[in-house]
This record gives sequence, C-alpha cells and structure tokens, in this order.
Amino acid sequence: MEVYAVIMAGGIGSRFWPRSKKKKPKQLIRIFGENTMIQDTALRLNDIVKPENIFIITNVVQKERVEEQLPHIPKENVIAEPFGKNTAPAIALAAKIIEKRNPEAVMLTFPADHLITNVKEFHKTLQKAINFAATSDGLVTIGIQPTHPETGYGYIQFDENEIGKGIYNVMNFAEKPNFKTATRFLKSGDFLWNSGMFIWRVDSILNEIKKYLPELYDGMTALEPVIGEKKFDSLLETVYGKIRSVSIDYGVMEKSKKVFLVKSSFGWSDVGSWEAVYNLSKKDKNGNASVGDVYTKDVKNSYVFSPKKFSAVIGVENLIVINTESALLVCNRENAQDVKDVVDYLKLNQRKELL
Amino acid sequence: MEVYAVIMAGGIGSRFWPRSKKKKPKQLIRIFGENTMIQDTALRLNDIVKPENIFIITNVVQKERVEEQLPHIPKENVIAEPFGKNTAPAIALAAKIIEKRNPEAVMLTFPADHLITNVKEFHKTLQKAINFAATSDGLVTIGIQPTHPETGYGYIQFDENEIGKGIYNVMNFAEKPNFKTATRFLKSGDFLWNSGMFIWRVDSILNEIKKYLPELYDGMTALEPVIGEKKFDSLLETVYGKIRSVSIDYGVMEKSKKVFLVKSSFGWSDVGSWEAVYNLSKKDKNGNASVGDVYTKDVKNSYVFSPKKFSAVIGVENLIVINTESALLVCNRENAQDVKDVVDYLKLNQRKELL
Repeated sequence: MEVYAVIMAGGIGSRFWPRSKKKKPKQLIRIFGENTMIQDTALRLNDIVKPENIFIITNVVQKERVEEQLPHIPKENVIAEPFGKNTAPAIALAAKIIEKRNPEAVMLTFPADHLITNVKEFHKTLQKAINFAATSDGLVTIGIQPTHPETGYGYIQFDENEIGKGIYNVMNFAEKPNFKTATRFLKSGDFLWNSGMFIWRVDSILNEIKKYLPELYDGMTALEPVIGEKKFDSLLETVYGKIRSVSIDYGVMEKSKKVFLVKSSFGWSDVGSWEAVYNLSKKDKNGNASVGDVYTKDVKNSYVFSPKKFSAVIGVENLIVINTESALLVCNRENAQDVKDVVDYLKLNQRKELL
Repeated sequence: MEVYAVIMAGGIGSRFWPRSKKKKPKQLIRIFGENTMIQDTALRLNDIVKPENIFIITNVVQKERVEEQLPHIPKENVIAEPFGKNTAPAIALAAKIIEKRNPEAVMLTFPADHLITNVKEFHKTLQKAINFAATSDGLVTIGIQPTHPETGYGYIQFDENEIGKGIYNVMNFAEKPNFKTATRFLKSGDFLWNSGMFIWRVDSILNEIKKYLPELYDGMTALEPVIGEKKFDSLLETVYGKIRSVSIDYGVMEKSKKVFLVKSSFGWSDVGSWEAVYNLSKKDKNGNASVGDVYTKDVKNSYVFSPKKFSAVIGVENLIVINTESALLVCNRENAQDVKDVVDYLKLNQRKELL
C-alpha cells in the first residue's frame, strides 16, 4: 500500500493581518516556534509519507515561498492553482495527479495551517484511518473531541455504534454554530470538531467526485493526458476558468453515503485568529505572551508581537498588539475576528502595499 | 520701558516618549497644529517683545534645532547651558545677560512647552503684569483660575485683597497636591494654578537672587565681563560645574517677600502627558483623536498618533497609541504618567537609540 499526502496551502489568512499578507499568508509564517505552519505540517508526515509522495496545492503568488520553505519536497509536487476555487477542485486536481502514479494509493489531505500538539497521538489516529481507508471505499475524516463550546469550528455528528476501534459512521455535518448550539453539541457527546483532514483511496474520492460533482470530474479528467507536460499550466487555467468554486465538505462529504470518521483528541487547533494564537501561546505569570522587543507594565492576558521595533505596553488587559514593519494592529482579544474588516478596508481603498 | 523675554527650553519631556527624544523633546515637536510648542511660545510674544529681545535658554543637544525652528531670533540669543541645573540658574544667567543690555528692562520668563488657547486674554494679562512689574520691585507670576482639581500642577495661594486690578499678594506656594487636597484648593477659591511664568524688572530678580541664592549670584556675576566674548562658553561651563541645581520657585519665589500674582484664565495647560494631549485635542463623535494613517473600529475616547505607518485599532477604550518610526507606545490613558518608567527602563538598559 502506497501513501500520498496533499497539503492544501491556498489560504490568504486575512485574520492574521498584518503578519499575513497575500504573498505570505498564515501557513508561510512562524507563529509558534522555529518552523512555519506549513513546515510543521510537512514535518508531521515524516515516517508516514515519503517526501516525493507529498503534494502541495498552492497558488501562483505563494508557490516560490512554498518551495523555499519545503526544500525536501520535489518542485514538481508543488502545484499552483491559477485561481482559488475552494477545496473540492484542489482535492480533485491532486487526486487526478496521484491517480496517474498509483490509482490504488491512499491519499491524505491536510490544511497547511493547523496546529497539532500531540504528534504521537496524531500518528496513531492517522495510521488507523489509513488502514481503514485502504481496505474500504470509505471517505474518512478526523473528528476531534471538543474541549469547549467553540463557535469557530464546524462540527460532525456521528453514530455512536463503533464500526471499528474508534471508527464511526458520520451522520451529519454542522456549520459553525452559535454559542448556545455549540454548548448543546458539547453536552450531547455525539458531535466532534471537523478537522478538515481527509483520508481515502484515490479511486474512492474520485468515484464520489464523479457522482456528486460530475462537471468538476470531467474538467479534471481533461487534464489527464497533459499531467507532467508543458501544456499542463495553460490547460489548467482553462479548466479552472470553467469550474465552479465549491468546498469538498459541501460538494461531496455532506452528500456521500460512505463517510466515516476516526475520533481523536491529539490537541488540535485551526489557529483561526490572533485570539487562538494567544490561547495557544505560552504565557507568563500575568497571562501575557510576547514575541520580540517588548516592555510591559500592568499588562494582563495580552499578546504582543514586536520582533523588529521596541514596543512599550502599559496598563491594558486582553489586548492584541501586532507591530510589523509595514503596519500596526491594536485589537481587543474579543474583537480578533474583526481583523478581516481591516483587510476589507484596505482592499476597498486599494492599499495594496499593506495587503 | 524695554521688554525682554526668556523662553526656557531645557526640558527633556520624558512623558512624551516615544515622540520626544533627548534631541527632540516636547518643546521641539508638533503636538497641536502646524507649529512646534516653542514656535507657538515665541509667536505669542509678537507685538509685545522684539525678536532681538527674546532669549532662549536651552542645552547643547537642542541648540541647533532651536535655532532652526526660530529663524527670526538672533542666534546669539540662543544660549546653551552646559548642564541642566533647574530653573534658578537659567533665569539668573538670562537676567545677567539682559542686565548688560538694560538693567532696568522688564524681563518675562516662559516655559517653552505650554499651551495657551486664548492668546488675546494672555496678552491682556501680560500687559497688566508688565505695567505692575515696571513700576515696582515685585516678582510677578501668573496664577491660572483652576477649572478642575488637577493633581499635576503646583498651586499658589493668594491674599484676596486686590492690590491692583487683578493683582494680588502671594501667600504660599503649594506642591502638586493629591486629589483630596486639590479638591479643597478648588473649593477654597484662593488657590490658583502655578503657571511657571514670571514678570519682573531685571534688577528686581537679581536683587532677590543675590539675597536668597548668593552663591548662584556670585557665579553668574563672574560671567559678566565675558558676556558676548569667546571665553563665555568655557567660563559658563566652569560656573555651571560649581553651582547647585535649584528651582526658581524653591530658591526665590517661596522665600521672597515681594511676590505678586496676576490672576487670569486664558486657557492654559502645561501639556504634561499624553493624557493632557488627548484632553486638549479635537475629538470625533466617538471621543477619538487621531493623527496620521489610522483605521478605527469600535474605539472610544482614545488618542492614536501614527503619521508614517498604517495603524488599525479595534475594540478598545481610553487608549493612547503612539506609533513612531523608532518605537511604539500602547498605554491606558489612566497610566499616562507611567510613560516615564519606560524611559527609565530604556536608560537602565542603555537603549540609547530609543532615548
């Protein structure tokens, strides 16, 4: 059994402005420790997937940096989409490319910008999912045991009858809930966080894409003869120009009858905002986390990032301060989601130098 | 009657970090409008004092910038003290220099970095004080009618028996009070804010300095023969090396029996902190004042200064954000006095580039 991995790295991470920019989004920056998010994502696959079996789906503006950050992965495995069309086209494209190498391979799909704290447990979960996917035509996802009523994640409801050790039938996918609903989900015990990680055989996912997204399937099939050829890029652009934008969740997972999950709890976060970064950072006795050249006095429960310039912060609580070379963000932790409004404002005002 | 003015511009303004630096303290920066504080101070003397009769007492590091900012004032009138020794030596030095030109002149003394909003009223007050000082041997100060129980100012208690229109005998000088005492001062009606502005004949102040600070008087008298000569600077350094640091308030005004005040209310502030700047700035409907390239969302009663770099501020209240090319300050308005702690920290850590 051969295992391939696909790392999806097309996001723009507007909630991480001003650190994330169009050319350097969340997955390409160092948020925790020495590695960028995508480097950690690739490193976690060591011992499970050979570097030549790892594919990155990214876009034209990020391709070069992705290659720089992942020098162990062959350049021909870094695929740039001409336009972002959400996850279903990215996955279909990757599946078609892998199919050409080995149509019976198991294909793992991961977002490039998530944090996993217990890698050993992650590996165990993955192995379980790989074994199940390899011997079935199931589409397997990883459901994370929720630790709190998070409103920033989608949820998956599962049938409590185990069909294998820690493997369950998926009943329903639920969009990001409000707080009340999230609390109910948590209490019910049969809802898990939707991690956005998938494990399936290449032929299994391609069959389901053919069934539920036939136009997408046909578009990608048209690419088959030119995979690895010079014509690939221009034909890819033509195909992407025609297909519609759709997520794999909405387009396939919510419709397919063959969806399973592996339940796990390996310490996972999609690191969706500066508030998440604060929560996941190591804090001092005042509950502060800081990076760089920072002075604080009477400051509590705050996150200060100021690697290049000296920042003095005095008499505040629950504040996020992101001081980069190009711009400054000062934001109440409760308003961390509003950072995308700044990005919208900058787009509207054509402040391209800040995006 | 000839009138001279002395502008005292030796302060370092550490409460205005990171805008004020050793080489560019508060008096040399634009805080309100187009002019620097010292430019406004000099402009206010138009029609009252001829430019060639205006002296600036500053220090070696600031001298060049003072000359640049006040091109209408003769360079020989910009005197650099070799070391800061508080206000009494600065005033004694200026008095000796003016004495050489005209020992019977009236000498006005002003801090370089105060804000006056009603210049017409200021002129009226000044004229009244000049007329009184010219025809007496009194030391006249300006007492400002308090508008609130300010704890950042010194107070002057006066004898309510007018000795001329709006002119009173001074009873006592009081240091910066706590809030309770300031409230009592305000209620009592016979306490005014100590503006630090003085009006006297040159011979009147020199007589009182001779009486109460004889060593200082003797030191400055030794300079007499070399005023305007090449030897002046080196002898000045010798004299300053010997004299002690003392304020004119403590050294003379609190001891002299000839102290008077003119009571006025021309809209005055010593602009002692970023909190004062916030209070004196024009605000929008959310109570915010901002300078430069600033985006705000859900922000109230805050001051944001960011002239060179884009700053986005979200979901905060009562915050001061000063984003300069060299450093960033984020400070609760209530903690505006603590900014000097940052300066102390930077001194201790020899971060000269930030001071």
